Amino acid sequence: MNQQANPLERRQTDLRAQLRQAERPILLGVAGDSGSGKTTYTHGIRRLLGNDMVTTIALDGYHKEDRAQRRKSGRLPLDPDANHLDLVEEHLRALRTGQPVEVPIYNHGTGCFDAPQIVRPAQVVVIEGLHALYSQFLPLLDFSLYVDSDQDVKWRWKFERDVVARGHDPEDLESEIQRREAAYKQWIDFQKTHANVVIKVHESHLSALAHQQYDGSLPDNCYHMEIIVSPSELPLHPLNLPVNLNGLTMLDAQPFMLASVPSTYWGRRVNVIHVDGILPMEAMHRLEEDIMALTGIATELDTRVLTEQAQNSTMRFTQSLVAWPFLGRISALLSGDAPDTEEFDT
Amino acid sequence: MNQQANPLERRQTDLRAQLRQAERPILLGVAGDSGSGKTTYTHGIRRLLGNDMVTTIALDGYHKEDRAQRRKSGRLPLDPDANHLDLVEEHLRALRTGQPVEVPIYNHGTGCFDAPQIVRPAQVVVIEGLHALYSQFLPLLDFSLYVDSDQDVKWRWKFERDVVARGHDPEDLESEIQRREAAYKQWIDFQKTHANVVIKVHESHLSALAHQQYDGSLPDNCYHMEIIVSPSELPLHPLNLPVNLNGLTMLDAQPFMLASVPSTYWGRRVNVIHVDGILPMEAMHRLEEDIMALTGIATELDTRVLTEQAQNSTMRFTQSLVAWPFLGRISALLSGDAPDTEEFDT
Repeated sequence: MNQQANPLERRQTDLRAQLRQAERPILLGVAGDSGSGKTTYTHGIRRLLGNDMVTTIALDGYHKEDRAQRRKSGRLPLDPDANHLDLVEEHLRALRTGQPVEVPIYNHGTGCFDAPQIVRPAQVVVIEGLHALYSQFLPLLDFSLYVDSDQDVKWRWKFERDVVARGHDPEDLESEIQRREAAYKQWIDFQKTHANVVIKVHESHLSALAHQQYDGSLPDNCYHMEIIVSPSELPLHPLNLPVNLNGLTMLDAQPFMLASVPSTYWGRRVNVIHVDGILPMEAMHRLEEDIMALTGIATELDTRVLTEQAQNSTMRFTQSLVAWPFLGRISALLSGDAPDTEEFDT
Repeated sequence: MNQQANPLERRQTDLRAQLRQAERPILLGVAGDSGSGKTTYTHGIRRLLGNDMVTTIALDGYHKEDRAQRRKSGRLPLDPDANHLDLVEEHLRALRTGQPVEVPIYNHGTGCFDAPQIVRPAQVVVIEGLHALYSQFLPLLDFSLYVDSDQDVKWRWKFERDVVARGHDPEDLESEIQRREAAYKQWIDFQKTHANVVIKVHESHLSALAHQQYDGSLPDNCYHMEIIVSPSELPLHPLNLPVNLNGLTMLDAQPFMLASVPSTYWGRRVNVIHVDGILPMEAMHRLEEDIMALTGIATELDTRVLTEQAQNSTMRFTQSLVAWPFLGRISALLSGDAPDTEEFDT
């Protein structure tokens, strides 16, 4: 409700125009387990800001060993020592000054390294990987996201594929889970304590809110998303999610839950946002149109194809909830209203 | 999201104008325990439709015994036989044809009956009382509301007042609770199975949604409201509650929860709406302005004083959630789109 002038209005120009004038690329780090959906959660940024302004770098390429070597050594890529993190740091410093870097590429199909690729940074660079929020990288990043995969959700599909469908030995899977989860806990999980935004995914919990018997039907891919956000002090312009009250009282009402609760999280103040069920796509579209007006993409590109792709609405809302504070951070940085992260040469 | 033409738009006139042309008053029954807040929950209807269009009749006056007589007889007013329900029925029939009735008045201060009052029905008549939804009344009512007071919430303040502050014997209170709750269960509680809207009040439950430690502070009068609504098939126009996403991500974000879940309730399909915490008053105002545009009150009366009175926001939202389907029912009745309730002379 804060009606203070916002940096964008003062500049009288949209975020894409501002980014074109920016002195250096904006760096966003995204950490989390492999297969946790890191790319999916930053999809909103690409959609709402414009694909043309975003370069993504996967840290898989910085593994020291390929699949065959790992089988021999028994090392997991989760181990930071199994990765060229010094090279990552060097590349981040270069990208921050707008220089191109030669990114090593790991091919998940063959399990081998492909030829490295020259990557020129767009206005926004997304760095995705197991160790993207390691402490040496944090001063180089402008914003950070951690995807905190739910162990149950993560392993259930693997159990269904490997044991139920392919007939593998369940004990093999159990020992794999133990080994990987222990390594995950030791080397990856702690990174969430620093992230600007943390996303957790749980099974839908809406039936607990029914009065006697739950009568809602939810699609299979419907989860309870928990989004933990470092609160911002700089207001962006009001951004309204229109919740239609007829949608609550009509016969065809869809089940949903939305909540926001101030909380502590590893010693710092956060807001915990919960989303579950089905949000009306119309409300999602209007929300995204509001954000696009801010970024200015709607006037430059035909965004209809992007926005119409089928996706479940809580995922879509989560993408907006990730994009929004990130865009706010960009806006503050480019207006000089926010302290910059540490200089790259310190 | 349903964009069908709605009855009001077809008529090209507002609800207040329609009600002035109506052939008979609209009757709303409100049942629930004494002290459960029946008057509070219909306050939204008075505020949004206009006080001038609403007459309220309290069924207290129809008790057979005054306080002194009850002390002697030991009968509770919860007992239907301790009330002149035949007279209530007679009066409802008269009110439905627009005739004035002579309403007996019980004075809660003196515990005696005052002189009866002639009541001329306005366009809407609210009948509030312990037995307002008894089966003989249902065919005469156009809409029904049951306030399902939470036993804990209901008795806690009485314990604090009588035992903690006044030093009464806790055993006396315990036996009073047992006797009253048993009578309530036998004679009052079952009425909720038929009501169009049922309201339940619980202690706030938001701390369960925090991630580690809950860091929200809630005012004392903040409850978790559960509103059970018979779904409507006739759409009113879209009515949006604007949820500001900055309100979710800013440092001064207020804790809140909003959910809607299809459910069964005593064998019928309902939507269960949950509201907890603090909704922004700005959003409440915009919601109420939308409803007032429908009723037409904003153009006729200065509503600022009414809307600015301090009140907690979940209560205010609950009042709108009660008023909205009731106004929808009126709109459908006056347009001939809904089946009328049973004729009064059958």
